[in-house]
Amino acid sequence: MAKKADILIRFGERVRELRAERGYSQEAFAHICELDRTYVGGIERGERNLALRNIERIAESLDISISELMKGL
Amino acid sequence: MAKKADILIRFGERVRELRAERGYSQEAFAHICELDRTYVGGIERGERNLALRNIERIAESLDISISELMKGL
Repeated sequence: MAKKADILIRFGERVRELRAERGYSQEAFAHICELDRTYVGGIERGERNLALRNIERIAESLDISISELMKGL
Repeated sequence: MAKKADILIRFGERVRELRAERGYSQEAFAHICELDRTYVGGIERGERNLALRNIERIAESLDISISELMKGL
């Protein structure tokens, strides 16, 4: 069975896409999220198995629901 | 501003509801998820800030997308 790309990779690509759509640099977005820029970089590269509280923080910073953030993943 | 219940509580209630709808006991569901029963109990009580890989595992065990699992949260 063909395996989809790892969830962390898919999630990171989704965050990058939504963040860029809004015209935020990684640094500006990290500031809005109140997360470290290197941590946000790690998320976008699929290196972070982040947990619910930070997922919620990212959704809020993108002004969308968690369900919308997870769409298509 | 009225604050919604904590995301961990809301997520736990959602998992409990979907798990029960399918007629699974907590124990049977933990077995399907390949997670410890006490861990699943902790999730349903809103005590676990669980991360993406386990969220994906729960969604797969419920046979829904992560987005569907997060609906309304």
